Amino acid sequence: MAYCTKTSHLIPVLRAHFLHGPYPATHFGPKACILPNPTSVMHIQDPASQRLTWNKPPVNVLVIRKIRDESLAEPFKELCRFLVEEKQMMVYVERRVADDATLSKDEAFGSIRNQLCTFREGYDDISDCIDLIICLGGDGTLLYASSLFQGSVPPVMAFHLGSLGFLTPFKFESYKTEVAKVFEGNAAITLRSRLKVKVVKDIGGPQQQPEHNGLLPHGHTNTDAGKVTLQLQVLNEVVVDRGPSSYLSNVDLYLDGRLITSVQGDGLIVSTPTGSTAYAAAAGASMIHPNVPAIMVTPICPHSLSFRPIVVPAGVELMITLSPDARNTAWVSFDGRKRQEIQHGDCIKITTSCYPVPSICCHDLVYDWFESLAQCLHWNVRKRQARLADTSDSSDTEN
Amino acid sequence: MAYCTKTSHLIPVLRAHFLHGPYPATHFGPKACILPNPTSVMHIQDPASQRLTWNKPPVNVLVIRKIRDESLAEPFKELCRFLVEEKQMMVYVERRVADDATLSKDEAFGSIRNQLCTFREGYDDISDCIDLIICLGGDGTLLYASSLFQGSVPPVMAFHLGSLGFLTPFKFESYKTEVAKVFEGNAAITLRSRLKVKVVKDIGGPQQQPEHNGLLPHGHTNTDAGKVTLQLQVLNEVVVDRGPSSYLSNVDLYLDGRLITSVQGDGLIVSTPTGSTAYAAAAGASMIHPNVPAIMVTPICPHSLSFRPIVVPAGVELMITLSPDARNTAWVSFDGRKRQEIQHGDCIKITTSCYPVPSICCHDLVYDWFESLAQCLHWNVRKRQARLADTSDSSDTEN
Amino acid sequence: MAYCTKTSHLIPVLRAHFLHGPYPATHFGPKACILPNPTSVMHIQDPASQRLTWNKPPVNVLVIRKIRDESLAEPFKELCRFLVEEKQMMVYVERRVADDATLSKDEAFGSIRNQLCTFREGYDDISDCIDLIICLGGDGTLLYASSLFQGSVPPVMAFHLGSLGFLTPFKFESYKTEVAKVFEGNAAITLRSRLKVKVVKDIGGPQQQPEHNGLLPHGHTNTDAGKVTLQLQVLNEVVVDRGPSSYLSNVDLYLDGRLITSVQGDGLIVSTPTGSTAYAAAAGASMIHPNVPAIMVTPICPHSLSFRPIVVPAGVELMITLSPDARNTAWVSFDGRKRQEIQHGDCIKITTSCYPVPSICCHDLVYDWFESLAQCLHWNVRKRQARLADTSDSSDTEN
Amino acid sequence: MAYCTKTSHLIPVLRAHFLHGPYPATHFGPKACILPNPTSVMHIQDPASQRLTWNKPPVNVLVIRKIRDESLAEPFKELCRFLVEEKQMMVYVERRVADDATLSKDEAFGSIRNQLCTFREGYDDISDCIDLIICLGGDGTLLYASSLFQGSVPPVMAFHLGSLGFLTPFKFESYKTEVAKVFEGNAAITLRSRLKVKVVKDIGGPQQQPEHNGLLPHGHTNTDAGKVTLQLQVLNEVVVDRGPSSYLSNVDLYLDGRLITSVQGDGLIVSTPTGSTAYAAAAGASMIHPNVPAIMVTPICPHSLSFRPIVVPAGVELMITLSPDARNTAWVSFDGRKRQEIQHGDCIKITTSCYPVPSICCHDLVYDWFESLAQCLHWNVRKRQARLADTSDSSDTEN
Repeated sequence: MAYCTKTSHLIPVLRAHFLHGPYPATHFGPKACILPNPTSVMHIQDPASQRLTWNKPPVNVLVIRKIRDESLAEPFKELCRFLVEEKQMMVYVERRVADDATLSKDEAFGSIRNQLCTFREGYDDISDCIDLIICLGGDGTLLYASSLFQGSVPPVMAFHLGSLGFLTPFKFESYKTEVAKVFEGNAAITLRSRLKVKVVKDIGGPQQQPEHNGLLPHGHTNTDAGKVTLQLQVLNEVVVDRGPSSYLSNVDLYLDGRLITSVQGDGLIVSTPTGSTAYAAAAGASMIHPNVPAIMVTPICPHSLSFRPIVVPAGVELMITLSPDARNTAWVSFDGRKRQEIQHGDCIKITTSCYPVPSICCHDLVYDWFESLAQCLHWNVRKRQARLADTSDSSDTEN
Repeated sequence: MAYCTKTSHLIPVLRAHFLHGPYPATHFGPKACILPNPTSVMHIQDPASQRLTWNKPPVNVLVIRKIRDESLAEPFKELCRFLVEEKQMMVYVERRVADDATLSKDEAFGSIRNQLCTFREGYDDISDCIDLIICLGGDGTLLYASSLFQGSVPPVMAFHLGSLGFLTPFKFESYKTEVAKVFEGNAAITLRSRLKVKVVKDIGGPQQQPEHNGLLPHGHTNTDAGKVTLQLQVLNEVVVDRGPSSYLSNVDLYLDGRLITSVQGDGLIVSTPTGSTAYAAAAGASMIHPNVPAIMVTPICPHSLSFRPIVVPAGVELMITLSPDARNTAWVSFDGRKRQEIQHGDCIKITTSCYPVPSICCHDLVYDWFESLAQCLHWNVRKRQARLADTSDSSDTEN
Repeated sequence: MAYCTKTSHLIPVLRAHFLHGPYPATHFGPKACILPNPTSVMHIQDPASQRLTWNKPPVNVLVIRKIRDESLAEPFKELCRFLVEEKQMMVYVERRVADDATLSKDEAFGSIRNQLCTFREGYDDISDCIDLIICLGGDGTLLYASSLFQGSVPPVMAFHLGSLGFLTPFKFESYKTEVAKVFEGNAAITLRSRLKVKVVKDIGGPQQQPEHNGLLPHGHTNTDAGKVTLQLQVLNEVVVDRGPSSYLSNVDLYLDGRLITSVQGDGLIVSTPTGSTAYAAAAGASMIHPNVPAIMVTPICPHSLSFRPIVVPAGVELMITLSPDARNTAWVSFDGRKRQEIQHGDCIKITTSCYPVPSICCHDLVYDWFESLAQCLHWNVRKRQARLADTSDSSDTEN
Repeated sequence: MAYCTKTSHLIPVLRAHFLHGPYPATHFGPKACILPNPTSVMHIQDPASQRLTWNKPPVNVLVIRKIRDESLAEPFKELCRFLVEEKQMMVYVERRVADDATLSKDEAFGSIRNQLCTFREGYDDISDCIDLIICLGGDGTLLYASSLFQGSVPPVMAFHLGSLGFLTPFKFESYKTEVAKVFEGNAAITLRSRLKVKVVKDIGGPQQQPEHNGLLPHGHTNTDAGKVTLQLQVLNEVVVDRGPSSYLSNVDLYLDGRLITSVQGDGLIVSTPTGSTAYAAAAGASMIHPNVPAIMVTPICPHSLSFRPIVVPAGVELMITLSPDARNTAWVSFDGRKRQEIQHGDCIKITTSCYPVPSICCHDLVYDWFESLAQCLHWNVRKRQARLADTSDSSDTEN
């Protein structure tokens, strides 16, 4: 097993404990206890022990790449050729990717290209037939993959080309070996929790807003009279902000039905632990390991100096509405997509989804995270020599 | 279910989900899954459903109060009288509390005082005979209670006198009703996780350091030749800092045996979620709800601008040592107590303990927390009118 | 002289030093010095000694109020009556204010109303004829006043109605006395520096964009072929952000012609010290007293964890452009107004203006500022009793 | 003139403005003005125009180096040889430096060593005879130099050996050329302001505490009966903290005689702009350019979430005392040195000193600062490719 160079002694850790922590004692002193209540007991598989298993050999592989990045063209073709010719896989790509000029003009690639299955986002539903997703490029490819699978998500293996991303742990250089290993099964995986977000919009009467093919747009359902509901899964975060307005929205935040606080400022980020290292980090949040079952709530430029980010249990239900006295609307977006306006009467409900993204680890779920903190965020990376206040120099000459 | 805004009548929330979040799906696409592995499955009681239950009626009640705060004298006496005379409890207090001048001089209290059981910290072990702990005063009383019970902790009911504390949710005004309710059982409780901290000190030979009565000091054990081990449970945090030195310690942080980062600065805080609102908040951490199974790592005035606090799963094992090239020693303290020096060769091991503090809720575990955020930290409390940059005034007159 | 209650001993401070600091010695050891160079010497009046002086008795008073705030209607009428009838002033108000229904319907106010001079923003230039500005309402009224006077600004006296604002130090209760004192002269004033902002837009040819009356919009000049320049004075800040886009602009920041850094994130705030307590504070800046000659540069949610706000000397010239590789445009706004798009080829030049806003102090320039920090931002306001980590309770019982 | 490589077009900037900003207009509207008051006018040399000038050729050079750093031995000897043999300077070094084993054993260096003038800190006063200071090593050497010169400080030229420091802009590689240029005069210099700190200790009676040679320790004077005063100049900061105690000091902060706020937490940093990039940055301060005339006040781990750092004018006088109800003492240190206890009755007075440290620039005062921000603090240094939330990838494939 090959580990990268930084840490010399990378023996896979045999953990003595569950990653979620030990069983808490349930007897407290000689006479008190918590009665075990079978109906409220969860049976959780220790995240550190989770291994990818194939029920049947995988056949259908979805390959996602950034489109406009020319430097990805060759790796993409190489990977497709490998999957089709050496591994006899059925490779799915978005039609726009297949139609890309650099691809369609390349005659040498023609025979492979003819074997690719193509689909169009929003028209063709491939969510039931993909066995494995392979991403080439930045973290955005994984967010895109997540958006394609609103229910169960196939395992995702993500390669960075230039530099390590939070969600793209694998180097492309050794892709053949790495992909082969994944096909064998037994890879470590991180179940990255997603948020299930429901936007209930008050459209003032029993209507529906058709789109494309006369259906409600993807994710929308027409529920009660006068309500349209959009439901989406996000991997990073839901952002509620002031949108194009330069004036501030006031939004109210409810937790399990109770008003917790009002937000005055540029907005609010509700993120998964995965998202805690993305926009939430820019807004000042602490960074949460993906295996902590939690939801992070981070204000964006809040007016109040004391409005710190908070971390709440994964199972709560959050709700966001405009404050009754808000003079401006707010805007919501989902992993940076599908931006839309929120008006009085609308509400956004958020809780942890039961459909995580199973993200294949390069090393393991702890090592990969700290590696990406250092590489992507320069977390506490510094020159030893240039210490901030090296007053020890003067102390040398003092005593 | 309709809640009124500011909580005048608090009906317990019937939650549809586990507080830890829903079961994640374990099948990913048509062919991949995680094999269930019974040896690595945890059975976790949903924290929101945990209720205090008495196997037998409680008899022995430990009452803890701040000593030097005169304003507590009357409430303390009132409470003791209530417990002894009305409830026929056996009341334990620390000998110093019983010997306090204001108490011993009060003749009216004499008969009650004679019925109190007293003990001395460090000499008399009462950890097996207390059924319930009642605290009067600030958060410090709970930290003290925690320190007395290094194993299983009896349920703790904590009253604030002046203003709400993070750990002291009950108002004293209605103590009779509240205490009676607790005796009945069925109170909501928060299991506040503690950290089990082990300090292994290299004392350079097979020695032991006697104290008091010729035994090793409380919590110390003499293990291998040349090693002395101190083990303690902390409710808030372990702090490693520069101690009396004005020069900075460099310490290394390991997670599950791997070097994660080095800390240059004033020090490092390893805290529970409970501790995230204490010293860690002062050092810039996000605030974590006590029911999130996590450990927070927060640097104190780090030299690196990019050294943000991080949140890791409760089950990891952290280890802290002096960096090999550190020129100064470091100091460690445990919930602010038992401060001691850490030298080359020593190490501090930290993980989540299986002995939480069962802290009785005033309302419920979510409401109590947000109430204390607002009251104790002024979290996002602000005047509506004096908005930071109310440029909307000028917009009014603009268009 | 009556001061409010908080500080017991409010004798006006006789300062021994210049507020800008003492003269630095210009001889360094026995042989080195800085040659005095008369052409580069500034003669600065000590800010703490600046007093408002009237060359001639003031006659024309501009009154600014928030429009849609009904609670201001009575105070506004009262003030106008006082100025017109008791003080024989010529009172200017914006036409929209005079036309406001609550005003025009009030017959008792009719005679006063008929004596008001009205003007329309953008059509009538009153910048040369106003002797004093009186603001009623929030900080936004002062920003609006600032926008009306692009050159020299008359003295501004600002009243808050509900709660203290950063820019509105006076209570309305005692307005008669306070206004009378200002008419007498000798009031302490803070010269709040403004930024002179020039936006040079590349419009690709010798064109002009007419507006309203066929002229270039207010503040625009048509300079060289293909360039349109907008110049504005801001009191709080210039904000460059991503505008309606949910994707991020990359902008480059130059200082005195040199590229200093690139900004990836939500944007950038360039603010005066006055603006440091407004949006910049929400984005994490330290707060700067208005008499420090400085410009503050604060990133908004920067991607880089190490991108701290910086404070540079007031005399530098900053320039902001889109980064050459930016894929999105940026948007700029001026004290929250006149939002517009910035494209490749455009640039924004910013330096300290020589036209500050002379803001009349309620007490003095130091006291007013700290009072507003406490009142508006709750700066370090907290309950004594509920200390964050009051571990001293446990120490009481320890030793 | 040679500039280093990073910025392509480094033409020395001809500034059109004073660095402190333009003259503010002193007439406000048609009738108001500030009366010029000659007694309160400062004549400030524009910092950007300040050039080092020699009245007479420099002769006496103090060389300061870190002692225990072996890697400095050769550069130090080389520099001394150059100064003595090529430049015919009289070189001063601390006796401990001259007596260092590696120096005294080196026979080849013997003849140079015999020509060095030595002095002992605290015994020999060289503050009147040094024409130039040259530092080798980290920022601590400059802090040490500053401590030796409590009045006028000779120009300081500081070389870093390994990596750039905030206070050590010169590379040693080209020391001959650089030193020669400085001897010629006309170098750009930054006058780094220092703080004059006075500690007035209540010693309860007419006493004195002798030290060394029977005199009061360096910097102490015996003033009134029962008071001892210590006065010191600091270049970075004065720190008031909890010292060896793990319990918190409460200290009160006064500004120009008024109580501004109380500090609960680990302590308080009062720093110069130079110090804003040292300990204050670690405690969360914004970073201030050395030419901004200001004092920065930064709390260390304050209990209050809203206690932000503030920046006040250079000319104010700050005073710090224990709060009347403080149960613990506090400790004060000066640029990391001379740590001592502060008790009830003591006070610390701080204002900007008139004796700055004239620090010779490598390029110029703006360029040097931004270079050191990037090099020492990694200020906004990041990889372009690994953007925090590169959701633009997914947008590519979306529309």
